[in-house]
Amino acid sequence: MKSLKVGLCGTGNVGSAVLDALTKNPEITQKQGGVQLEVILVGARKGKSAVRNKELKVVTDLRQAASSDDIDVFVELIGGCELAKELVEIALRNGKDVVTANKALIATHGDELFKLAKENKVQIGFEASVAGGTPVIKALREGLVASRVQWFAGILNGTTNFILSEMSENNTNFDVALKEAQDLGLAETDPTMDIDGTDAAQKASILAALAFQVPFEFDSVSYGGIDQVDLEDLNYAKELGYSIKHIAYGNLNEGKVNVSAYPTLVSKELLLSQVGQQMNALDICCEEIGSTVYYGPGAGPKPTASAVIADLVDLANGGWPAQESGSQVNKISKKIIKPFPRYFRLEVKNEAGAIAKISSIFAEENISIEALIQHEAKKLKESLQDTVPVVIISGSVDEEVTSRLISSLESMDEINSQVKQFRIHNAL
Amino acid sequence: MKSLKVGLCGTGNVGSAVLDALTKNPEITQKQGGVQLEVILVGARKGKSAVRNKELKVVTDLRQAASSDDIDVFVELIGGCELAKELVEIALRNGKDVVTANKALIATHGDELFKLAKENKVQIGFEASVAGGTPVIKALREGLVASRVQWFAGILNGTTNFILSEMSENNTNFDVALKEAQDLGLAETDPTMDIDGTDAAQKASILAALAFQVPFEFDSVSYGGIDQVDLEDLNYAKELGYSIKHIAYGNLNEGKVNVSAYPTLVSKELLLSQVGQQMNALDICCEEIGSTVYYGPGAGPKPTASAVIADLVDLANGGWPAQESGSQVNKISKKIIKPFPRYFRLEVKNEAGAIAKISSIFAEENISIEALIQHEAKKLKESLQDTVPVVIISGSVDEEVTSRLISSLESMDEINSQVKQFRIHNAL
Repeated sequence: MKSLKVGLCGTGNVGSAVLDALTKNPEITQKQGGVQLEVILVGARKGKSAVRNKELKVVTDLRQAASSDDIDVFVELIGGCELAKELVEIALRNGKDVVTANKALIATHGDELFKLAKENKVQIGFEASVAGGTPVIKALREGLVASRVQWFAGILNGTTNFILSEMSENNTNFDVALKEAQDLGLAETDPTMDIDGTDAAQKASILAALAFQVPFEFDSVSYGGIDQVDLEDLNYAKELGYSIKHIAYGNLNEGKVNVSAYPTLVSKELLLSQVGQQMNALDICCEEIGSTVYYGPGAGPKPTASAVIADLVDLANGGWPAQESGSQVNKISKKIIKPFPRYFRLEVKNEAGAIAKISSIFAEENISIEALIQHEAKKLKESLQDTVPVVIISGSVDEEVTSRLISSLESMDEINSQVKQFRIHNAL
Repeated sequence: MKSLKVGLCGTGNVGSAVLDALTKNPEITQKQGGVQLEVILVGARKGKSAVRNKELKVVTDLRQAASSDDIDVFVELIGGCELAKELVEIALRNGKDVVTANKALIATHGDELFKLAKENKVQIGFEASVAGGTPVIKALREGLVASRVQWFAGILNGTTNFILSEMSENNTNFDVALKEAQDLGLAETDPTMDIDGTDAAQKASILAALAFQVPFEFDSVSYGGIDQVDLEDLNYAKELGYSIKHIAYGNLNEGKVNVSAYPTLVSKELLLSQVGQQMNALDICCEEIGSTVYYGPGAGPKPTASAVIADLVDLANGGWPAQESGSQVNKISKKIIKPFPRYFRLEVKNEAGAIAKISSIFAEENISIEALIQHEAKKLKESLQDTVPVVIISGSVDEEVTSRLISSLESMDEINSQVKQFRIHNAL
């Protein structure tokens, strides 16, 4: 039977789950993958006290762990970008394969690290960096290796999907839903990176590199967070036949790649709209196949550990196809070219002629109005002074025209406050 | 760059799509998989006329094609079990890896063929045999290699999913929906293997072997077809919050594996219930991860070709983990142990006391009634003489008790005609 000697740093939830799985149930990968995985050492600055299994060898010098002659592969689970990067580089330079769950590291320094790995004739596994236990990296770089990806659209952050689902289903506001997510352990004490879209954008950057053979370039991802979504928007979306999800979207058009992550209306007819709770899902659309969708838990120690260990088994069996990453064919660009249908919500003074004026502004920009809702004022719970909300679904518009439209609308006397705008994903 | 010399037999839709992809767009797998795939020869009994690309070498003796010294891997796409089996055996004995899309072959002769492959130190790829372009085999034997599968539930036959979806959405009967599937090229002229559940059952047998390390044993799969589903059942299911899907189900319980494929009510809250048209989807529930779901087109020349070529790239990169197939730990058994909640539809004489009598028969068997629908006779489109349909959703019951219950119900004077019964899948 093939075997692999493993060194691991990071003894938090995921690291502990990996160690538990490898030491308590080693027969699973032997039986199902034909591979024996042996934990040789654990790097933990706090020493033995940080490791549940007292029989494991613990070293407090993490650099020593990453460079040990006794290991074949180094598993990096400490997170963050500084020390993690240094340790991964040490391991690669010492001829160790690396497995990591660190999305920030790959999204930001992927190219550098893959270059270093290639120079040292070793490989890097990062299945656990996107969608936890759901094997989307594998699907993208192996299962769909014979197909050309046109676009992907994914719910890649479980915390925000939980919050949006809670708000929509229970008619609660953002703060209540966030508190519940924190109570259930689904959100960090400081949830900024989830809420503002950073986490999803990092994952999107990784998917784009694999799907479109562009560099790992997190800086080129444009993104926004779910703090822009009000309960009112969720209710209007529902009325119009949509869910609001935080969607990471990447597409390739004539050699140009755009990657972004924003709250987005998703048509109820698409599977993505049905993904509730803290679940993740990714729709990958290829020229040859059409859409394939991958759904599962995007986080949690055991699912993430399952992905880390699957990478170890893959390494023992020869690793992954050598994709030409960072090739010069496709270019990533922050300027988003693709037009989307869009949702607009305006606070309009309850005066004759306001709707006519709004419609004419849309007409001037040559944007079609596909749906418009203005409820009778008496239906509204709180009639904000003398304004009423008007919701418009438009035909496809690009970013540039959308900005211009919003400026024109906001300069109208009849419109109070900022105009809300979200994209619509309808898979066309 | 790694390279692989390919020989292929079978020049139907899938074979032609594979040849087109390999000869017209060879750069895809070079760029995305680091592999050069070269078609060395095509076996076609009719000779050159059967092959679109006139530059390819064609041999009319298929046995010669399978054993050629010039090839590394033999791609079997002729279908059926006799000649296909002989050719695959010739290829394996001659030290060729094999890639096939032939579900019947793997489901029926898998163990024999994998044994022969092992003896000859070669491998067999069969991603295309289940769910076409959606990489479910890869997910199961690589992505989830570190997890223990508890059960799987899948919509594995596109033709029948199209028919059931059409019936349900457009309120048409079976014959009309089948005709439409045939007109759209989604159903064969003789659709028996799809309609009666054979095709889905073969695929379920393949999934079970991978998920539970049992032999490929199609004979141990119990199955039934969608011809048992009336439009009336689809409408009652909808009223009760379910879709009816043809679900292939496999589960492991204390070392015992059951595999089956039947029309099944699926709760509207589950993603599987939302899978429309000719799409496939597979829910795999693991102890460590919970459910992951894989959705995509289950057939079609291009998606299937994509899976065949992905297998070729995998082979060039070292192939697949050596799973202990046919191990002695888990046993497959045709006797289904798992209890399911169930749907019953009875034609009951419109007489006082009938419902009371039915309820008491359920009570005698200790089966709970979770829901019951009996519409007023005037609501029914056709009042069949003096009977009314009664629909009951029961708590969980096993097969044995269900048969006894149905016998008792059918022997009642108040019940006309056969009792309809379907399982309910609610993921519990």
